[in-house]
Amino acid sequence: MTQDIRILIASKGNPQALAEGFRTELPGAAVFTDPAEAGAGPVPYVVAGKPDPGVIAAVPGVELILSLNAGIEHLLAPGAVPEGVEIARLVDPAMTEGMADWCLAVVLAWHRNLHLYRADTEWTRRSEVLSRDRVVTVLGAGALGGRVARLLAQIGFETRVWSRSGRAVEGAQSFAGPEGLVRATTGADAVVNLLPLTPETENLLDAALFGRMARGGFVASAGRGQHLVEADLLAALDSGQIGAAALDVFRAEPLPPGDPLWAHPGILVTPHVAAPTQAGSAVRIMAENIRRHRRGDPIPERVDRARGY
Amino acid sequence: MTQDIRILIASKGNPQALAEGFRTELPGAAVFTDPAEAGAGPVPYVVAGKPDPGVIAAVPGVELILSLNAGIEHLLAPGAVPEGVEIARLVDPAMTEGMADWCLAVVLAWHRNLHLYRADTEWTRRSEVLSRDRVVTVLGAGALGGRVARLLAQIGFETRVWSRSGRAVEGAQSFAGPEGLVRATTGADAVVNLLPLTPETENLLDAALFGRMARGGFVASAGRGQHLVEADLLAALDSGQIGAAALDVFRAEPLPPGDPLWAHPGILVTPHVAAPTQAGSAVRIMAENIRRHRRGDPIPERVDRARGY
Repeated sequence: MTQDIRILIASKGNPQALAEGFRTELPGAAVFTDPAEAGAGPVPYVVAGKPDPGVIAAVPGVELILSLNAGIEHLLAPGAVPEGVEIARLVDPAMTEGMADWCLAVVLAWHRNLHLYRADTEWTRRSEVLSRDRVVTVLGAGALGGRVARLLAQIGFETRVWSRSGRAVEGAQSFAGPEGLVRATTGADAVVNLLPLTPETENLLDAALFGRMARGGFVASAGRGQHLVEADLLAALDSGQIGAAALDVFRAEPLPPGDPLWAHPGILVTPHVAAPTQAGSAVRIMAENIRRHRRGDPIPERVDRARGY
Repeated sequence: MTQDIRILIASKGNPQALAEGFRTELPGAAVFTDPAEAGAGPVPYVVAGKPDPGVIAAVPGVELILSLNAGIEHLLAPGAVPEGVEIARLVDPAMTEGMADWCLAVVLAWHRNLHLYRADTEWTRRSEVLSRDRVVTVLGAGALGGRVARLLAQIGFETRVWSRSGRAVEGAQSFAGPEGLVRATTGADAVVNLLPLTPETENLLDAALFGRMARGGFVASAGRGQHLVEADLLAALDSGQIGAAALDVFRAEPLPPGDPLWAHPGILVTPHVAAPTQAGSAVRIMAENIRRHRRGDPIPERVDRARGY
């Protein structure tokens, strides 16, 4: 059944490792890492990292794009993927777990003042707050936001979760829509952003949102760089309205040397490592999506272009 | 019923706040913060922080010691508390929560290399490991260790828990006894110590234990300073067998300026803040123990002197 599958890997990461994975998962499939290798015949499946503009549109007979990331806004840019071609986001439990690990690590390290203690060389006891006495708001209630919110609630934080749909998360209070965003972030001690990037969510982390939070609060973002208005964050840190921030994503990556985000003492920069793609599990999930597509079964995490994710 | 209760607060912390709390919880009770105030009459209840030697033994008619801490080894020193006087450990859900917050914070911050990223001013991506691929061993399975182990397992770590009794913890693998300690720590990526201090647990965190762990592992201790052989930890850090450590407790507190633990780059020192006593909830728990004692009901968390905690 997999003899006539043709797959192009359009990724600058480690295309050979991915290709080997697909050859193991789908024996007999023809897997290419360069469009030139594929020749003129149709290539229904394209595994997409962040390919150069025009690469996907030039592939003949493409039917399904398998994204290597949960965020796919770059694949919705005009001309990137032809109309009518399906796109599947990669929602991999291993990446979800990595993302939750990062979010919990930065929230808890802030919560317990670890970087302040690390800088101390004398016995200075700071005021410590219990998790039950802090409100943490998670933006996004999908696989990523849902897991993070559920674990924050289990640890003891008063947890709120905001999403487009208002999806419920065990132990957390759910909010939806623009007015819900105001209520979800008002008085929050920490905000953790895991939203997809869409026109509605771009620049969402701005002075207005920071101003609604509890004074001295914490902002973590592992969504996309474009969610954050950097100048507003720097101003809020300098005024004391925001006490600290942890950022894993940036408008330009790698974040350029000398960017003010690097040196600000209130900001922890991590180099887009929150949820690295796990090649092994990613290939298994994408191969299963190819099998589903060939059987005519629905693809989980299929992108809704109108919704933007 | 509470008219004739006489309580001495033997604590250097904030005895007046505790006294006010007891006067509210047990209206009419006579509450003293100085033995001289109590006169010669019997004082059946003593609230004990870490009083000077001889203070408790000099109180007439003492029946029950209400410890302000979970650790009570100092109250079992020869002559500290007369034979036959009951001692109740303080196991306060608020302190348990604070302890779990600290343990999760230091384990996750190590797990995700936060202090390495904080020191970076350029885009250096480090190898990141998923929680499912790391073994964390919690020493202690009481209220504190049980909560920490359960949450670590929920986050995704392969979790082991070792205690005297081998008590089961949801999601974790349980071990008991000296041979169980060897099995629980062999290959562990991280060890979190929450044990009570007894002759059996003193100096438990030593070169032999570190040597059984996975190379480059992490040690966190929020038990007592006497659990740790500092020289063995420093040697294991310098050899690379241990990669990092977080310590909240020390043989001498405050940890003296200039102690090598302060300046070692692999060690995070926090100044005994993991689980600060929460006066409000602590007083409610101790007042309830006084009521139980007067009714002749058993006291939860009553110390077993033979066991040592």
